[in-house]
Amino acid sequence: MRVSELSRRSGVSVATIKYYLREGLLPAGRQISATQAEYDESHVRRLRLIRALIGVRGLSVSTTRELLGALAEHAGDTHLQLGLALGAIRLGEETIEAPSETAKVDALVEELGWHVHESAPARAVLAETLATLRTLGAPLDWQALLPYARLAERTATLDLDQLDGIEDPLEAAERALLLTVLLEPALLALRRMAQQNESARRYAGG
Amino acid sequence: MRVSELSRRSGVSVATIKYYLREGLLPAGRQISATQAEYDESHVRRLRLIRALIGVRGLSVSTTRELLGALAEHAGDTHLQLGLALGAIRLGEETIEAPSETAKVDALVEELGWHVHESAPARAVLAETLATLRTLGAPLDWQALLPYARLAERTATLDLDQLDGIEDPLEAAERALLLTVLLEPALLALRRMAQQNESARRYAGG
Repeated sequence: MRVSELSRRSGVSVATIKYYLREGLLPAGRQISATQAEYDESHVRRLRLIRALIGVRGLSVSTTRELLGALAEHAGDTHLQLGLALGAIRLGEETIEAPSETAKVDALVEELGWHVHESAPARAVLAETLATLRTLGAPLDWQALLPYARLAERTATLDLDQLDGIEDPLEAAERALLLTVLLEPALLALRRMAQQNESARRYAGG
Repeated sequence: MRVSELSRRSGVSVATIKYYLREGLLPAGRQISATQAEYDESHVRRLRLIRALIGVRGLSVSTTRELLGALAEHAGDTHLQLGLALGAIRLGEETIEAPSETAKVDALVEELGWHVHESAPARAVLAETLATLRTLGAPLDWQALLPYARLAERTATLDLDQLDGIEDPLEAAERALLLTVLLEPALLALRRMAQQNESARRYAGG
């Protein structure tokens, strides 16, 4: 297909496609004349993934390039590819200062028996939350998070089920990114609505 | 107690307490001399709630004053007080433009049999998410949200259980606010970690 068709199929403007080609995010098409190139399905999928990484995860162009390289390098390792796309496994050796409640998060993960990457940003988020609640005079035991974690397990099963049957690993990575990052506000909204419903049930007398 | 003790107990600085007194967010203490006033437990609870509304929900001082008035007006109606504190029920008659996917959210809530306020911002968040996923070429049926909603129901039950045994309704409102707003990143972090674990289970061969 020509660049105009690629633009239509991927939802990315021609100008942006040319920019990604120059920046090395998108492999060049097959040159069919001095001014025209031919693109294929792999370009459509790659553009959708780029759009998700930049537009949804908010990565810079250079980080996206680095991440696309890492994804290609680990072709065949779906678990690692998903972790990289979702940002659960970090590129390079960033050292993050351990928040004060890290030991509690470690205890929680141990108790759950979960396999979670040591560098996963989610660990730090959890530790920060526990620290904030303590600061505000409303401390929470990590044990109080266990039933929430069990519900999160079931949510994650639903999430991964949605990737079933997607053969192309880069397409699966893009879909995982959309469903994870974009569903986050929706899941929080469902919780808020469910709280209202539960509050009505308990306090509004039916 | 004196203002210094009130500051220590509530975690709010003396200067900020004086500002809240001037702004009418905090009722005056009992004047015991020309320069000294005496405060009690109700001031401690009120300050914690103010801190949660401003610091956690990010409300302005004037909106907080308005909301505190509404909470006092509806003393005894725990369901309404929780809804107001959490922002599930809006003050006044804001008209919000209905997003394009509103009918789907209505269908979802109807199917679930939930009691959710018509003006609840969570409805708009859900509609926005569905619209965004459609725009990005990854549309999601509202039916796909049903199993997520059932898990949200169980999460909300855990949430409301944590308010059990708190007698003072303003204290319950403050606690609900902290546990709802501050737990949000933690719950999302648990989902991310559970996804990693589920991905390891499915793709990393144990």
